[in-house]
Amino acid sequence: MSARVPVTPIDAAEISTYDHVTDVLVIGYGCAGVSAALEADAGDAEVILLERQSGGGGSSALSGGEMYLGGGTAIQEACGFTDTAEDMEGFLLAALGPDADQAKVGLYSRESVAHYQWLVDHGVPFKPSLWDSPTWVPPTDDGLMWMGENAYPFNEIATPAPRGHRVTSDGFGGKVLMAVLSEAVDKTDVAVHTDTAALRLIVDGDRVVGVVARHFQETVTYRARRGVVLTTGGFADNKEMLAQHAPQLVGRGVNSDGGDDGRGIVIAQAVGAAVKHMSAGQVGISLVPGMMVRGMIVDGVGQRFINEDVYPGLVGQAALFKHNLNVWVILDEQAYEEVPVEERWGVQPHFVAETLGDLEREIGMPEGALQTTVGEYNRFAERGEDPYFHKSDRWLRPLRPPFAAIDVQRGMAPPEYGDSAGSGGAEVFTIGGVHTTVDGRVLNLDGDPIPGLFAAGRATSGLHSWGYISGTSLGDGTFFGRRAGIAASADE
Amino acid sequence: MSARVPVTPIDAAEISTYDHVTDVLVIGYGCAGVSAALEADAGDAEVILLERQSGGGGSSALSGGEMYLGGGTAIQEACGFTDTAEDMEGFLLAALGPDADQAKVGLYSRESVAHYQWLVDHGVPFKPSLWDSPTWVPPTDDGLMWMGENAYPFNEIATPAPRGHRVTSDGFGGKVLMAVLSEAVDKTDVAVHTDTAALRLIVDGDRVVGVVARHFQETVTYRARRGVVLTTGGFADNKEMLAQHAPQLVGRGVNSDGGDDGRGIVIAQAVGAAVKHMSAGQVGISLVPGMMVRGMIVDGVGQRFINEDVYPGLVGQAALFKHNLNVWVILDEQAYEEVPVEERWGVQPHFVAETLGDLEREIGMPEGALQTTVGEYNRFAERGEDPYFHKSDRWLRPLRPPFAAIDVQRGMAPPEYGDSAGSGGAEVFTIGGVHTTVDGRVLNLDGDPIPGLFAAGRATSGLHSWGYISGTSLGDGTFFGRRAGIAASADE
Repeated sequence: MSARVPVTPIDAAEISTYDHVTDVLVIGYGCAGVSAALEADAGDAEVILLERQSGGGGSSALSGGEMYLGGGTAIQEACGFTDTAEDMEGFLLAALGPDADQAKVGLYSRESVAHYQWLVDHGVPFKPSLWDSPTWVPPTDDGLMWMGENAYPFNEIATPAPRGHRVTSDGFGGKVLMAVLSEAVDKTDVAVHTDTAALRLIVDGDRVVGVVARHFQETVTYRARRGVVLTTGGFADNKEMLAQHAPQLVGRGVNSDGGDDGRGIVIAQAVGAAVKHMSAGQVGISLVPGMMVRGMIVDGVGQRFINEDVYPGLVGQAALFKHNLNVWVILDEQAYEEVPVEERWGVQPHFVAETLGDLEREIGMPEGALQTTVGEYNRFAERGEDPYFHKSDRWLRPLRPPFAAIDVQRGMAPPEYGDSAGSGGAEVFTIGGVHTTVDGRVLNLDGDPIPGLFAAGRATSGLHSWGYISGTSLGDGTFFGRRAGIAASADE
Repeated sequence: MSARVPVTPIDAAEISTYDHVTDVLVIGYGCAGVSAALEADAGDAEVILLERQSGGGGSSALSGGEMYLGGGTAIQEACGFTDTAEDMEGFLLAALGPDADQAKVGLYSRESVAHYQWLVDHGVPFKPSLWDSPTWVPPTDDGLMWMGENAYPFNEIATPAPRGHRVTSDGFGGKVLMAVLSEAVDKTDVAVHTDTAALRLIVDGDRVVGVVARHFQETVTYRARRGVVLTTGGFADNKEMLAQHAPQLVGRGVNSDGGDDGRGIVIAQAVGAAVKHMSAGQVGISLVPGMMVRGMIVDGVGQRFINEDVYPGLVGQAALFKHNLNVWVILDEQAYEEVPVEERWGVQPHFVAETLGDLEREIGMPEGALQTTVGEYNRFAERGEDPYFHKSDRWLRPLRPPFAAIDVQRGMAPPEYGDSAGSGGAEVFTIGGVHTTVDGRVLNLDGDPIPGLFAAGRATSGLHSWGYISGTSLGDGTFFGRRAGIAASADE
């Protein structure tokens, strides 16, 4: 996609004939786009689904495959957990704030069980078994996991229940989710146009009526009678946009399919769309949660800064935004050995030492820094307490020699992360985007819907304000993608 | 200003006659607007300056009156300091980053001596004497102050020189700056229209040609032959915009004249303007820098997080964005007594205790927290070292009983801050805004100038990306305000 193509819209008066005409045009074949297409099709609309890669999947297919679902799903019940929509809502408002989207979080929580059922009805597999230790993605095919609901302060805000529903998979589950939903699309009349990148919107007065796209060297025009649904992803791959809106994310690894260039957001802005929370980002910190939780995470001067049993995404945000990722995992031999081998992802300590004094020197921390921190930690761990950061007593034990340190900035690479070892300590993606209603209608700067324009997924500001918990992107992408597809198919 | 008036522009075809016609229309009579008006007038343009309050001044008149200037000004030389534009640029890029605006910072630094002279030529008074201790605003009328240039890490990035040029005043200097520049305006042909709020832009095709304003209950139209210059300030007074773009600033006190509602930014966006760094904010933390630097600042569990001799604005950003302002100033009796009475602003400790154990208990910190932190601090202070945060040895001394603690969230109120004691620990304003060239031309989403539209001051993203040092708002407001006025007067 050339940077030279303007983002400003084209007047419909300039288009004499369209190459394709449909009811609903969905742009982007990730989890939001496929959900919008399925529901628009179910709503008896003619649907074309554009994707600029050669096949569907997008960044969704590369993800861990966690869906944040709860309120009493069949998987939760099978694993023996009681949950309510209110507790789910309370957790999400706290974890995704400050000032998370109350309307979206409330609706998402109340309709979560129904959304779970929609996914299952479309063939998405979830296994009714719990993985009960902090991790990014279970090394097994367990289908339910904690996302820090049982960690401080969230365990005091809402009754905890595990809500990470992981699509059954060997490894990351995103590819399975997208394969299943793609199969569902194949059974419908949805026309999929691959290798086709949307470049500009077409407007008729105030209304969005289509897009100009590029198919290899060819310009192709699409007319959408009822609505255009943008599900084009975030902007983590666009360095200029990152510098303008989220400068703290610049220079980190990117968790995407390489196509999160933000163009969908900008072409929407060019027809008047408002954006929200453009500075926010998920920070997939490069560490093994099972090691961190059994030891501790410290900043560059050896100070702890968070309870290590919260969801590692929140650790990543704290580490990047508060400490510029200059952070270390400190643990002892027993902690390392206790981490099941399949959870270690091959990570070896960068420094080992018999004493904390030696370890400080090797790392280059102030003399006494780790001795002080571990001393305080051990003093309270003996009693099963952590008055500093409130880590659960399940993970509290005095650390004993020999000790080890892992430099987070040198990264670690679970097989499916590919080259994340060179990511500088984290892979990020953006959370902000266009401002939408719960029905996926894109709002302009006056807060009014832009006729004919819908959006969902990471091209939008979803449930989140600033905080991030994994499973909410596949979660709000599919949920609000569906709603956008329904609303678009019903338009006019 | 009613929220009901749409922000979308009005087509010039709908306006039959204008109430006022001029060459350059400047909107907002703060430091950026007055500078733009003076230069547009000097450029032989007919100028109208709109202000919605009953008189000029804006938030600028309520500010401390610091201007960040350097590179070898007469004041710096009179105080015995050598400075270069390169060192000034190096400091600003580090302090205002990550990813501060290189083009703006470079130009601003190279032309700083000339800009100083322009201010002096217009009558702005600066006294050639140095205030040599960390503070928000000197309690004397000293004209030069350090803005943390001599603190780590900046002292290792660029050769330090004090660059805070404080307008000579009894107390805050902003009112003097605005009074002097207003007198300069009075000597020109610039027409000042007060009680007049710009509501919408008027466009003729792609070009901005005027504004629709409100003067009490009356609608007034303005035509600008050469250009409209938006200098309407930030959006700290607009809670909805804060929640959308800078949620961490919601609920804090606001440092403004009450009119920073962001409308200037939004009406620019509605004609296609791009925005940058909307999440960034200055955080005027409610503490006495002279107390903090002689003691320490700690978070809620008693841990230090920054060298206390950096500019307090950077302490404020760290305290809010990293610790949600749950921070405390810890000091001993000697430190308190050493702070000159006129610097204390009447602040009394919230807790005093003979032992750190007692102080921890009174505050509610973990048992041992302050004993650990002060123990480590003292151990190194004995040697004049601070390997943790690198505070200058000038301020290092072991702290001895009795001890005291000040709760930053309970605030402190120097007389001119008015009711800041109820601000929850800080008064904030926003730093992000519309994307402009160094000539104040507003850029659209394609990076092209919007014909006829200029902007400066806190309605724009200025020198800054994320970091903030006081003096850069009056500094870039006047500097880029001038350039916008020059460019607008030369247009067409």
